[in-house]
Amino acid sequence: VAAPLLIAVDVMSGDHGPRVCVPAALAALSSDPRPTLALCGEPAHIEAALAGVAAALRARVRIVPASQVVAMDEPPREAIRRKKDSSMRRAIDLVAAGEAAACVSAGNTGALMAMAHFVLGMIAGIERPAILSAIPAEGGHTLMLDLGANNDASAEQLRQFALMGSVVARDVHGIQRPRIAVLNIGEEDIKGHARVQDAHRLLLAAGLNYLGFIEGDGIFTGVADVVVTDGFTGNVALKTMEGLARMIGGALRDEFTRTPLRRLAALAALPALGALKARLDPRRYNGASMVGLAGIVVKSHGGADETAFANAVRTGIVEAAQGVPARIRAQLVAQAA
Amino acid sequence: VAAPLLIAVDVMSGDHGPRVCVPAALAALSSDPRPTLALCGEPAHIEAALAGVAAALRARVRIVPASQVVAMDEPPREAIRRKKDSSMRRAIDLVAAGEAAACVSAGNTGALMAMAHFVLGMIAGIERPAILSAIPAEGGHTLMLDLGANNDASAEQLRQFALMGSVVARDVHGIQRPRIAVLNIGEEDIKGHARVQDAHRLLLAAGLNYLGFIEGDGIFTGVADVVVTDGFTGNVALKTMEGLARMIGGALRDEFTRTPLRRLAALAALPALGALKARLDPRRYNGASMVGLAGIVVKSHGGADETAFANAVRTGIVEAAQGVPARIRAQLVAQAA
Repeated sequence: VAAPLLIAVDVMSGDHGPRVCVPAALAALSSDPRPTLALCGEPAHIEAALAGVAAALRARVRIVPASQVVAMDEPPREAIRRKKDSSMRRAIDLVAAGEAAACVSAGNTGALMAMAHFVLGMIAGIERPAILSAIPAEGGHTLMLDLGANNDASAEQLRQFALMGSVVARDVHGIQRPRIAVLNIGEEDIKGHARVQDAHRLLLAAGLNYLGFIEGDGIFTGVADVVVTDGFTGNVALKTMEGLARMIGGALRDEFTRTPLRRLAALAALPALGALKARLDPRRYNGASMVGLAGIVVKSHGGADETAFANAVRTGIVEAAQGVPARIRAQLVAQAA
Repeated sequence: VAAPLLIAVDVMSGDHGPRVCVPAALAALSSDPRPTLALCGEPAHIEAALAGVAAALRARVRIVPASQVVAMDEPPREAIRRKKDSSMRRAIDLVAAGEAAACVSAGNTGALMAMAHFVLGMIAGIERPAILSAIPAEGGHTLMLDLGANNDASAEQLRQFALMGSVVARDVHGIQRPRIAVLNIGEEDIKGHARVQDAHRLLLAAGLNYLGFIEGDGIFTGVADVVVTDGFTGNVALKTMEGLARMIGGALRDEFTRTPLRRLAALAALPALGALKARLDPRRYNGASMVGLAGIVVKSHGGADETAFANAVRTGIVEAAQGVPARIRAQLVAQAA
């Protein structure tokens, strides 16, 4: 019998709160027989959202009361100091206490990162946490980190990010020898600033399946399984993708509604357009991992709907089932040996 | 009578050479009565590409012989040292001599930048050149720099980029008070690393129409006319856009050709899909400016086709007609006063 897999879910944060987060968490729960859930937040709201849920599913859910919510614009320091009974903090505390195997929140990224860092601490040997997410790519997806946990990264930190990304690719995504690349402004060895240059040298000797540098367009070609970059560049790249995808989506809608004839053509094109939308649906990729922390913390988009938030909870479940922090520790030990 | 507007075009570089560059340059020439062209390269090849051109147009073209071509992978230093009779060098030399008002090349970016920097030098008061280009955005386009001339940028250099972007937006794109923003990983004043923080403070006092920080998605919303960033981040963002757009284009093609019925639907959808394609066509935005140099240098994509290369030549023409380097000098003087 496997250990109980309790996932702590902050259901009060994000744009929609328990009305969306509770049914989303239940959807993730019902698609996997292993986990149980601790829904953290205002009991009355959670009970209301749980009304009518089948008994067998309900039996796998407990409510962890929390009287506060961390605001989306709350400064991280304030959240740590003043929101000790928040849904976010309760979820993290359950992980720290060893009761929950992972926590999931759609709250304020800065506050979640700071609070989790403060409460859980780091894996020994990892200097900084990084935000890791899957990005759609040809024939599947590419894992990318850091997507904005940090303003910058030293060469040694980039090496650590590569190691963590490699572990997640192998143990969560089932890729035997994950191909690692460092994002740069050219593929030649001599390109880029000192930090990527030094990271390149470190990674050539790191015992990983390291390919070398790729440029931004390489994120989408499937040439690498893990793309490593500093949090500034990674966050700009991620937001740039989101902005461009939104603009193209808008332009597509525009062009297919411009005239009655075009609206008719859109009907005929619906299967193809629907398939395209499904393929690039950002909700499929919702749920970024804050790797490097001594516990699993998954961050959902604040605006996540039910489908999206359910995927973030699923990310928490698979990372918990694999015990990602322990796997990272083991890899660090193996590397050092 | 206005001064003669001679544009020096390196027709030997890029993936296609004179076969594409010569007709493209002629297309740009025929759409504007003002300029004349100096086509730099192998005379026999250029003559062949000019065969059959109408006499009136032919009279506005002269051939500047060059026996060498800078290779696409040639190290910049080697290009400067050994390719003194290259089409690229001849085009730049014409600008340095004051004969041409601008030069245009589809060659190796690093070599073009290094050679132009070496031959033309910088505008006094500008420390580093930057690559500036228009990026498609809601309702038009956004100008963005630096797209990869440098590995990094100091706060003061970011301020200089903002000033140059503002001049190009105003004098080339006709925007009265260009709205300037600095790319960052959050919009709040406290976000980002020391370089963007310091640039923010400098720009608040720079006498420009400075909005503050924007995130990557803000590039596409039309909220700013000029987006300023360092060459590393800018190049990654640009390549990320190119890669994502290519992937979405490929997925669209895939989905509309998957079944006979979908291919039929694609026919009905052709006007909408064609309009979308035209709207986002990267060829419309071909022609990046290397601003900060003491002369106008326009870099075309290496793979540019006729439509794309013609647009790069047109960029050279409008920048030459406006005398961008002189305008930047004037702005620096006005700022200092």
